[in-house]
Amino acid sequence: MPILVMKFGGTSVANLDRIQRAAKRVALEVAKGYDVIVIVSAMSGETNKLVGFVNETSPLYDAREYDAIVSSGENVTAGLMALRLQEMGIAARSWQGWQVPINTTSAHGAARFIDIPRDNIDGKFAEGFQVAVVAGFQGVSAEGRITTLGRGGSDTTAVAFAAAFEAERCDIYTDVDGVYTTDPRISSKARKLDKIAFEEMLELASLGAKVLQTRSVELAMRYNVKLRVLSSFEEPSDDAGTLVCAEEMIVESKAVSGVAYSRDEAKVTLVTVEDKPGIAAAIFGPLADAGVNVDMIVQNIAESGYKGHDGGVTDMTFSCPVDQLARAEKALNDAKADGRIAFDRLEADTDVAKVSVVGIGMRSHAGVAAKMFETLSKEGVNIKVIATSEIKISVLIDRKYMELAVQALHDAFELEVEG
Amino acid sequence: MPILVMKFGGTSVANLDRIQRAAKRVALEVAKGYDVIVIVSAMSGETNKLVGFVNETSPLYDAREYDAIVSSGENVTAGLMALRLQEMGIAARSWQGWQVPINTTSAHGAARFIDIPRDNIDGKFAEGFQVAVVAGFQGVSAEGRITTLGRGGSDTTAVAFAAAFEAERCDIYTDVDGVYTTDPRISSKARKLDKIAFEEMLELASLGAKVLQTRSVELAMRYNVKLRVLSSFEEPSDDAGTLVCAEEMIVESKAVSGVAYSRDEAKVTLVTVEDKPGIAAAIFGPLADAGVNVDMIVQNIAESGYKGHDGGVTDMTFSCPVDQLARAEKALNDAKADGRIAFDRLEADTDVAKVSVVGIGMRSHAGVAAKMFETLSKEGVNIKVIATSEIKISVLIDRKYMELAVQALHDAFELEVEG
Repeated sequence: MPILVMKFGGTSVANLDRIQRAAKRVALEVAKGYDVIVIVSAMSGETNKLVGFVNETSPLYDAREYDAIVSSGENVTAGLMALRLQEMGIAARSWQGWQVPINTTSAHGAARFIDIPRDNIDGKFAEGFQVAVVAGFQGVSAEGRITTLGRGGSDTTAVAFAAAFEAERCDIYTDVDGVYTTDPRISSKARKLDKIAFEEMLELASLGAKVLQTRSVELAMRYNVKLRVLSSFEEPSDDAGTLVCAEEMIVESKAVSGVAYSRDEAKVTLVTVEDKPGIAAAIFGPLADAGVNVDMIVQNIAESGYKGHDGGVTDMTFSCPVDQLARAEKALNDAKADGRIAFDRLEADTDVAKVSVVGIGMRSHAGVAAKMFETLSKEGVNIKVIATSEIKISVLIDRKYMELAVQALHDAFELEVEG
Repeated sequence: MPILVMKFGGTSVANLDRIQRAAKRVALEVAKGYDVIVIVSAMSGETNKLVGFVNETSPLYDAREYDAIVSSGENVTAGLMALRLQEMGIAARSWQGWQVPINTTSAHGAARFIDIPRDNIDGKFAEGFQVAVVAGFQGVSAEGRITTLGRGGSDTTAVAFAAAFEAERCDIYTDVDGVYTTDPRISSKARKLDKIAFEEMLELASLGAKVLQTRSVELAMRYNVKLRVLSSFEEPSDDAGTLVCAEEMIVESKAVSGVAYSRDEAKVTLVTVEDKPGIAAAIFGPLADAGVNVDMIVQNIAESGYKGHDGGVTDMTFSCPVDQLARAEKALNDAKADGRIAFDRLEADTDVAKVSVVGIGMRSHAGVAAKMFETLSKEGVNIKVIATSEIKISVLIDRKYMELAVQALHDAFELEVEG
């Protein structure tokens, strides 16, 4: 029998009624002849409640106990989903991570899959079971301790099962009905995409479009798992949602597929840094050690000269997530204090946002960057930092222009029109 | 290092504050030099919530899924207790049933222990761990499915660990401070017992004194585990609570140790039954098949004759838990309908209560029954049914006299006075 993986997130199993609704979708696929592997999250709110218990009990918690505690929410949902399916006359049973087993590394709270042996679940399918309901987000280490994959890890569980069981498709049921050309809350012209390439989805995921966890998309790309994102609140239909798939399956050839944004950025400028070989390493080494995810980097000639330096001087600007700003400042000031780097002053700006255009079509379409800069210029939006990849151009701008920039770029690249 | 088992029930771990309070008690025992095995229940209310989910999802649930779901509450408490102990500088970790492993039968919802191999936990103690926090109430079957022992099963888990690890003592922390001569809510003269014999505790447990689960006492008796019942809400002290132990350790020699009662009884009388050999089997066979726990049985000569029978006639009276009455009536009426038994009519009385006096001293003291009947007679309490064992005399009476009977018997046997 062909295998289908279906994943239901926390809002899709938030209460018994929603579990029933999700179970009905599973029943539809069973009726089509699939052996179904269902991956479930905890009922929405449950994991946060458990995380709250852990943090209150032990702020610097033992991650092994954290994992043992927070993984319990998925176990409850898995059992309830199995019972609901049984009530519908479907042969189903629940599987906890250690029962499959889902073998992971011992990196508690951020474990990675080692392997998912098929024997146990395949054996049950062979016995006539139609559905395996697997608790998402968890696994088991070689030491026999429960591990978790980090928040949102159930998406990754789903893709890993789809890869291990060579599933025909991996359907991710969530509370949005697909991937959009941009956030519909920002542009009313946002259009749902029927298909999007893995690479594009990766850029969108990491740029703040919170539809799919980045790791799950990476894994899907590596194993070429067809991933469909769809809403559990819409009526079932064959062309629902957005298919995330290999580039070859996409016939559209627009230069840009979507406009993404992120509000959670901070810009840091080190003013009047000595411009000498190794200075970048001297600055970004301590930041990396402090766990700061530096995103965009720009090096300028300093506007003002600086007496007392033998060589030239420069300004160094970078962006990082705003919640890592304090750590970044401390790392840089410490490095200055013990003489590893020298700079005149540090300027931090948290009033910035990142806006990006993404599209695999950029590879074959010239002039995307020019069009982007021109569009923003026409709207009077000043660009502070630019970063590019093969399929993405990102700019850092004043936060107050963010919505304007997203709307203008969405218009300029005609994203409301299909094909 | 000597091993101590400490069990904390649902009210003793009802929230994070109470878990902290319980952890402090564990710390005191660790400081005395014990390796401690802590058995925890789910936070009070959690298991009922999960059972509610199961019943609503699937009234005739798959017991394997029920077990997988309801066992999750204990896993959460075990992790939180381990974290709290770690915060106090104690080397602790949590253990779920399958990690120990706690091997049980596959009788889901009512599993029984097969064995509890010591290797894993002993190995951790040898590494320097001071506390093993074990999720109570659960185990794992040979098929690798999670099992539960039935409600209240955490007491049994505690005793089983005390037996397996040859613990010096098994302390059961609950919301009462020990075992009393009778229910203090009924007699203000009730006195806490310092010690009680296993056999007495068994009679009291099964008679409705809800301090310890019957199976845990049976197990403690079989393996001679010293069991102490005490409150987690009182200040720690060495002579707190009640010690449940072997008869030999008890020097008191009163005839009666306690007066127990149960409101949840029903009396059933089959009026004018044919009195012939095999009639008891014909009546109680169908009841056993229907899962009715028949407690007391009395056979009377029928007051009125019954025309149409060749032989003599009799009345047959028995008692059973009131929530099994409907099942009992159905079983008997069915048996009558298909001719397996014949009786004139069935009279059910739910307005009854059982009152019992219990004491190992009865073995050596004569006249206990006489004194009991005389006391009740003086108070004008009519006895409907009598049942006795070696260390217990039970009577079924009108429910309205229950409190009066308990108080009068407590006075008559001078239970408010020690020794």
